Amino acid sequence: MEVINGSDIAAEIRQQLKEENLREGISPLLAIIVVGDDKESLVYVGLKTSAVEATGGKNRLLQLDADIDREALLQKIENLNQDETVDGILLQLPLPQHLELYRDEFLKAIDPEKDVDGFNPENMGRLICGKPAFISCAALACMDIIRRAEFLASGKNAVLIGDSFDLIIPLAILLLKEGLKVTMIPEYEEEMSRGADILVVEKGLPQMVRGESLAEGSLVIDAGFHWHAGRSCGNVDKNSLVERELYLLPVPGGLGPVLIAKLMENLSIAARKNQLPRSQEGSIGKESL
Amino acid sequence: MEVINGSDIAAEIRQQLKEENLREGISPLLAIIVVGDDKESLVYVGLKTSAVEATGGKNRLLQLDADIDREALLQKIENLNQDETVDGILLQLPLPQHLELYRDEFLKAIDPEKDVDGFNPENMGRLICGKPAFISCAALACMDIIRRAEFLASGKNAVLIGDSFDLIIPLAILLLKEGLKVTMIPEYEEEMSRGADILVVEKGLPQMVRGESLAEGSLVIDAGFHWHAGRSCGNVDKNSLVERELYLLPVPGGLGPVLIAKLMENLSIAARKNQLPRSQEGSIGKESL
Repeated sequence: MEVINGSDIAAEIRQQLKEENLREGISPLLAIIVVGDDKESLVYVGLKTSAVEATGGKNRLLQLDADIDREALLQKIENLNQDETVDGILLQLPLPQHLELYRDEFLKAIDPEKDVDGFNPENMGRLICGKPAFISCAALACMDIIRRAEFLASGKNAVLIGDSFDLIIPLAILLLKEGLKVTMIPEYEEEMSRGADILVVEKGLPQMVRGESLAEGSLVIDAGFHWHAGRSCGNVDKNSLVERELYLLPVPGGLGPVLIAKLMENLSIAARKNQLPRSQEGSIGKESL
Repeated sequence: MEVINGSDIAAEIRQQLKEENLREGISPLLAIIVVGDDKESLVYVGLKTSAVEATGGKNRLLQLDADIDREALLQKIENLNQDETVDGILLQLPLPQHLELYRDEFLKAIDPEKDVDGFNPENMGRLICGKPAFISCAALACMDIIRRAEFLASGKNAVLIGDSFDLIIPLAILLLKEGLKVTMIPEYEEEMSRGADILVVEKGLPQMVRGESLAEGSLVIDAGFHWHAGRSCGNVDKNSLVERELYLLPVPGGLGPVLIAKLMENLSIAARKNQLPRSQEGSIGKESL
């Protein structure tokens, strides 16, 4: 088994972005909206704000009361859309129950050009038909790993376990467009994983996937996350893979850090689009004086 | 082999819509934009306008010069968006070459609530995340056939050959959400079709799929269209299926008519949303006088 180190890849991506941003004089500003004080959400937000700082950017954290109403939240989003200094907007999910009902409306309200999560339905749709401004970071992270491992080749057989809007469906579309054969399965089946060159497992029980049911030479991306026996783990039983000839992106230290690094890439793209034309306009303005 | 008669199913759907529209006092108005005079496009437009009339609706055909420019076409679409009497808007594809470049922009310009083709990226995206106002008719037609044939069951194995934005990708998402296992393959492979309970073949050579490579008891949907030896045919070699125990939606007389019937369903939904609130508002208005 060869373990792919997601933390190392994430550090490499962050370092490259930091240098690019510095070279081009860009300091991306990410606005993060957090509603309520769900502890898990705050942990994820902390990871994102640290990554923004590590790539030379700045954060604007909007921590809103859990009982904020629909209209007020929509107004907060609209204010950030209008604010030219904000490059990217991220609405931390999940929302409190009374707002979760309107989730699609909030995601749709985020300007597609600032939608660094790629969750605005217009960006999702342009993935099927056209070119999205931004693509979901979980799907981008898997694509990056697959490309680095040199598995992004026409004819390869990818099997994706799950049905999520942020990973499985966009990843399936991206892989199909690269000429791969793509199977999506809502629940894990041992039989289906045997023929996979690339296996992505987002749904399932802790450490459910065992080495015996994987193909020789395959790439396995563990996209699960569980607390089990006091430790974090994924859907793949690492120990059962040790003696097998295959590549594993494990949990922890796998998809999570790469996902946040891809968010930083999206943010840098947004900042480049948003800041460069302005500064160029500025210099044209000066010349014409 | 049991042949599924798409023309009969389409006639049944049309008849039902006609009765519903009559009962509810709705006469749907479809605006069709055709740019240029491509003969094949005009044939399809003719089929659509006839279907609108057969379901108690009316057509407004905008036949535009092939050399119309981008801004003028966008303005035509915007006029139809604003026109309250128009229930559905359809932009006949393909467009002339100088406009095809901006296709996504035109599709995005159509009000999602009038987008009866389901091609606006917002509707596409809400298919992944949320609820679309309208879904592509080709995908809806396949879902209807699969449901009628009683193959829409969790655990069934669907294999889709192709990568189109209007059929393969939306159909894959719809089937996954119903709990099926879904494989998308950009090009036909005999080996992959053998395990399919449901096989949809959109891409390939005329009459390429032969009975020997199909599973006993499977449902085969031919979504190809070719002119071959002076006759229309699909991707499936019908003759080679005759002795096999399976279901075939053939070409001709299969997906084509059902697709147009599903367009009429979308149009009736649009008309119901657009006309009923207006007439209800009207009656509330009268009472309050």
